[in-house]
Amino acid sequence: MKYLLLTLIGVAMMLNSKAQGKVLTMEEAVLGYQLYPKNLYTQWQGDRNILTWLDGTDLVGEVPGSGEKKVIMTVGELNRAIDANLQGWAQYAWKDGQTLTLMRQGKLYEINTDKKQVSRRYTLPKGAQNITSNGTDLLAYTLKNNLYYLDANDNTFAVTQDEDPNLVNGQSVSRNEFGINGGIFWSPDGKKLAFYRKDESQVATFPLLDITTRTGSLKEIKYPMAGMKSEQVSLGVHDIASGKTVFLDVTDFGREQYLTNIAWGPASDYLYVQVLDRPQKHVHLNQYCARTGAFVKTLLTEQNEQYVEPQTPIVFLKNDPSKFIYRTNNRDGYFNLYLVDADNGKVLKRLTDVAADVEMIGQDGKYMYYTSAEVSPVENHLFRVDIKSGKKNRLTTAEGWHKVTPSADMKYFVDNHSSLNVPRVIDLVQNNGKIIRNLLTAEDPTKDYNFGEITLGTVKTADGKFDNYYRLIKPMDFDPAKKYPTIVYVYGGPHSQMVKNTWQAEMRRWEMYMAQQGYVVFVMDNRGTSNRGAAFEKAIHKQCGQAEMADQMKGIEFLKSLPYVDSNRIGVHGWSYGGFMTISLITNHPEVFKVAVAGGPVIDWKWYEVMYGERYMDSPHTNAEGYAKVSLMGKAKDLKGKLLICQGAIDNTVLWEHSLSFIRECIKNNVQVDYFPYPCAEHNVMGKDRIHLMQKVTDYFEDYLK
Amino acid sequence: MKYLLLTLIGVAMMLNSKAQGKVLTMEEAVLGYQLYPKNLYTQWQGDRNILTWLDGTDLVGEVPGSGEKKVIMTVGELNRAIDANLQGWAQYAWKDGQTLTLMRQGKLYEINTDKKQVSRRYTLPKGAQNITSNGTDLLAYTLKNNLYYLDANDNTFAVTQDEDPNLVNGQSVSRNEFGINGGIFWSPDGKKLAFYRKDESQVATFPLLDITTRTGSLKEIKYPMAGMKSEQVSLGVHDIASGKTVFLDVTDFGREQYLTNIAWGPASDYLYVQVLDRPQKHVHLNQYCARTGAFVKTLLTEQNEQYVEPQTPIVFLKNDPSKFIYRTNNRDGYFNLYLVDADNGKVLKRLTDVAADVEMIGQDGKYMYYTSAEVSPVENHLFRVDIKSGKKNRLTTAEGWHKVTPSADMKYFVDNHSSLNVPRVIDLVQNNGKIIRNLLTAEDPTKDYNFGEITLGTVKTADGKFDNYYRLIKPMDFDPAKKYPTIVYVYGGPHSQMVKNTWQAEMRRWEMYMAQQGYVVFVMDNRGTSNRGAAFEKAIHKQCGQAEMADQMKGIEFLKSLPYVDSNRIGVHGWSYGGFMTISLITNHPEVFKVAVAGGPVIDWKWYEVMYGERYMDSPHTNAEGYAKVSLMGKAKDLKGKLLICQGAIDNTVLWEHSLSFIRECIKNNVQVDYFPYPCAEHNVMGKDRIHLMQKVTDYFEDYLK
Repeated sequence: MKYLLLTLIGVAMMLNSKAQGKVLTMEEAVLGYQLYPKNLYTQWQGDRNILTWLDGTDLVGEVPGSGEKKVIMTVGELNRAIDANLQGWAQYAWKDGQTLTLMRQGKLYEINTDKKQVSRRYTLPKGAQNITSNGTDLLAYTLKNNLYYLDANDNTFAVTQDEDPNLVNGQSVSRNEFGINGGIFWSPDGKKLAFYRKDESQVATFPLLDITTRTGSLKEIKYPMAGMKSEQVSLGVHDIASGKTVFLDVTDFGREQYLTNIAWGPASDYLYVQVLDRPQKHVHLNQYCARTGAFVKTLLTEQNEQYVEPQTPIVFLKNDPSKFIYRTNNRDGYFNLYLVDADNGKVLKRLTDVAADVEMIGQDGKYMYYTSAEVSPVENHLFRVDIKSGKKNRLTTAEGWHKVTPSADMKYFVDNHSSLNVPRVIDLVQNNGKIIRNLLTAEDPTKDYNFGEITLGTVKTADGKFDNYYRLIKPMDFDPAKKYPTIVYVYGGPHSQMVKNTWQAEMRRWEMYMAQQGYVVFVMDNRGTSNRGAAFEKAIHKQCGQAEMADQMKGIEFLKSLPYVDSNRIGVHGWSYGGFMTISLITNHPEVFKVAVAGGPVIDWKWYEVMYGERYMDSPHTNAEGYAKVSLMGKAKDLKGKLLICQGAIDNTVLWEHSLSFIRECIKNNVQVDYFPYPCAEHNVMGKDRIHLMQKVTDYFEDYLK
Repeated sequence: MKYLLLTLIGVAMMLNSKAQGKVLTMEEAVLGYQLYPKNLYTQWQGDRNILTWLDGTDLVGEVPGSGEKKVIMTVGELNRAIDANLQGWAQYAWKDGQTLTLMRQGKLYEINTDKKQVSRRYTLPKGAQNITSNGTDLLAYTLKNNLYYLDANDNTFAVTQDEDPNLVNGQSVSRNEFGINGGIFWSPDGKKLAFYRKDESQVATFPLLDITTRTGSLKEIKYPMAGMKSEQVSLGVHDIASGKTVFLDVTDFGREQYLTNIAWGPASDYLYVQVLDRPQKHVHLNQYCARTGAFVKTLLTEQNEQYVEPQTPIVFLKNDPSKFIYRTNNRDGYFNLYLVDADNGKVLKRLTDVAADVEMIGQDGKYMYYTSAEVSPVENHLFRVDIKSGKKNRLTTAEGWHKVTPSADMKYFVDNHSSLNVPRVIDLVQNNGKIIRNLLTAEDPTKDYNFGEITLGTVKTADGKFDNYYRLIKPMDFDPAKKYPTIVYVYGGPHSQMVKNTWQAEMRRWEMYMAQQGYVVFVMDNRGTSNRGAAFEKAIHKQCGQAEMADQMKGIEFLKSLPYVDSNRIGVHGWSYGGFMTISLITNHPEVFKVAVAGGPVIDWKWYEVMYGERYMDSPHTNAEGYAKVSLMGKAKDLKGKLLICQGAIDNTVLWEHSLSFIRECIKNNVQVDYFPYPCAEHNVMGKDRIHLMQKVTDYFEDYLK
């Protein structure tokens, strides 16, 4: 069994199960927030070195190292300031060292916590979204398809006044790919407002049925489908003083190019945009004049036969605006950081040289801080690099996954970490890694439950080049002499990592619910998923599902080697990309999978969106063979086992067309398949509906796999 | 067990089962046309007393009594006449004694069979529908929403030219209720063309999703929902000579009145319309001038606190145009026939006085011929009445159900009949009932199969006033010592009769498939169904489902009294109204029904169409209590057993909203329910899809009832 490598990590890491204890209810398995470890929700108080959190009804803070907790504001003081009668703090955010912001009843309050009074109050119109402060006195927002801003004196200004609903301003574009998650970009000085405009007039519409109205009605959504006409994006810059708007003169790749990773120059004079061609093979880092919109120059370019995928705006050095930090995985196959001359785009220095994807956490001019998986693909640690000397230090030592939040000046950070057996530890740490104080060591909230054993381990990829990480959960009250039915939960798509050395190994609690019902549960990442570098990720290119399936089948071989796994009772379950994987697996390997439940599955990539779909699959025109090969439409006839498909009936991510077309194909071929729609759910079935869903999934395995 | 009355008929009527033999495949059970008894598809040759049928590739005919079969036209002669190369006759119809009509490749041919050549050829435009001859030289048809006619010289004339698609001309109206099944009415002389126009501008639209297009698309249908704005119907009369159209001046009941049962006066001078108010409590039989559209007079009126439901146009006496025959069930509770003075609407004579619904077959001036269930509710026999003397004769004697087709002059009729054990007998009969010749005695096409025993019987209605008829199928290889799972198949809605003394008792062959899988199958009509008189039918008024359920529960009591029925394994299945019944039964009687499969179910009558819905349920405004009581929305929480709901996803009869809303309600109440949509099916799932459907239904019972 040469393909099977159970690492020492895997063997060492087992979460002990308790022979006695409670069994999860389905509600606990799906919603049970009380079963998550305690957290503190700390925030740094703007640019002051004070760490704040909520303590009962008080907002409290601590100067690191002082050991002294001070009340910053009580809820009574908050109520007096905003003339309210709140019982506690639902939310807050620091705008700066003395100002916190709070939304309430359509108003955004800025509260001076030193004076304990409102310093500004903005009255937002009903339906306002994407509310974004300029850092000083203005608030931008979108209302329907237009962009506005207002001041604290209730003066409102329209930045755009488009009547055509196909023109959408100030909102996110490109279906949130390329790291895009918003459409408003204030300049550092707060005097210019850059914003996305997308023109959807060429994009096809798809109808969604709303059954909650008296006679049933329709919502039409714009949905750019692979190979078809797409959005046309531009970037406007509105000057507050003049009231004038210019649009950047971006001409690199035609009307359907992507404008991504918008960054402002520190002096609010230039904009830096990473422009991609629609096929996503080329990217230009361009500089534009914010005043005129004119193109200045191309600073850097990348190209790749498979795809380029910029995900990070450039960041200028704090103490030297002539240099910026640039992040790409197109040079050595991992996201590393480079110091670049802002004038000519010359790479001055490589800041990191790591065989793992690097995420910048911050910089203070002297040091650059980053996290990465360089210790282990399932761990995340903080490092700092001396920008001048290149010297690197590891700042977190405890095994596991560290989420760090630095103070504004980078002198301190909060280290929120966990590992397989450690629910949560929150430490206050100095920027050299020295722990100042432990803020929280959370109890195990599941200690009274009878959980099966969780193991972390690895299996070689089908091409033998990488390790895939898995978690394996044994049934409650495990008896090694028994043969258990086994469920593989799969996602498998890009931008995901299901298995980490975090508390309970990132387990979705339903997996433990099933372990308590007597199943072995197995979850493994495969090639194509994230945090493992470009070669690992791009192995799926043009043939989504193929390498992933090959890897998952290696996982199956491993499972079959376990004496307690019943090879005749293997099921598979997944949602979205995991739904695609699930149906791919049961139709391509009908001899292995007896039962499958697929949710919101992609059935044919030609029905999926342009940005994501064409990155991994190219266009249906240029890769017709690949599209055909991985399409599940032709696989319906090969279905042998029991397959249940679930989908939200108003899914606007994976359109309903996918699963309906698949069952249509099953019907045509006289192949039995089961189906369940969630009439009012979008792509993910949430809240109470999710309890129903997971009960349905469970019942299906209980009925047909047990 | 006072409610249980197994009649002598029931005991006497058993279809013997064969201990050995074949088992049905699902395809045979659903489509197996070869398992229907042979038929002849005879037609009378226009006004000639020649009976014609297809014999191989020849169209042959016989003068009754002559015993001599003559070839009227060979397929070779047909091919020569229309310049075609057909292998056989797919269809034909007699226009008159020497002319047959035949559609081919967009052309309608009139072929003189004496001369064996085409006498007229009409070239229809693509998409032409509702093609209707004026009996001489013109052909009316609809194209999209307008009405046209053409002659055999390819001259086309537009009767209407409405550009607004909400105005629909020449098509059926009122959702085919009130006996309406078309919208074109030529006058007897062929010189005037009456037609329906409906204005749907006030009617709500409902979206249907078409997944077969590249990006998914939408078909919007007009659907008038109970209690909401409805169609506005008018009747135009177009005069061919002048080219002018007038509309009847119908002012009885406002804009949403129903214009039903259109009849022409024999002289082509008047039109007779049965006009209903929207609440369907009143009907006026009105006479209008065909030339001006002017109202002439009201001849007869009916009113009823529950509803009136005219279903038959008046028919003028053949030899006396001053009298017509009028059919109503609003006088004595049964559809009887009345002879009426055409001048003043005075009822001259009651033609029938039968405690059963009478269907007029024809009249020759001297005799009026009708069929009815007066011998037994499950039999249909032919009678004739001497119009003058009122003397009645029964003309069919063989037990069972007779379908009769008279010759044009009423001298002969073809009697196509069957009964429980008689597959099909076709006799050529004189109009006094004397059989001239047996044309066909069909073999039992299922004789090689091992079928369970079929029994016909009765159970008293819940109110004790009527007998409900059932058929009961015992499992194949029945063992009286065993306990069998039992499936109730139910329809139960108005205008239906599931149980008749026809061959195999009107069994759907899937029932026998299930009997062969080891189930008892039970099908019973209940109050509300047809052919039993108004009191029986109207017992459901304002509370659809209540009396029906009470009756079906009497059927269940009967089943439970049978030693071989396993009371703990009773399932129920039904479609449409039967789907409504199925869910009503399993939610109202969760202790009885373990498993149910409902198809295309009405969930709440407020989502069903105006015409049918308001007749039985009144309006949601006037009968809010009744609507609420029978709505299944509030019953979702009471579901205990296993329920599978299936529906065609483009159902334009029972909108998809029904079943989706019900499962939404189940999800809200965290009640498990199963579902399967047929993405490209309308209200009924037909053809190959139906094999898949019935396999799914079968599997569900096999998984959960067995």
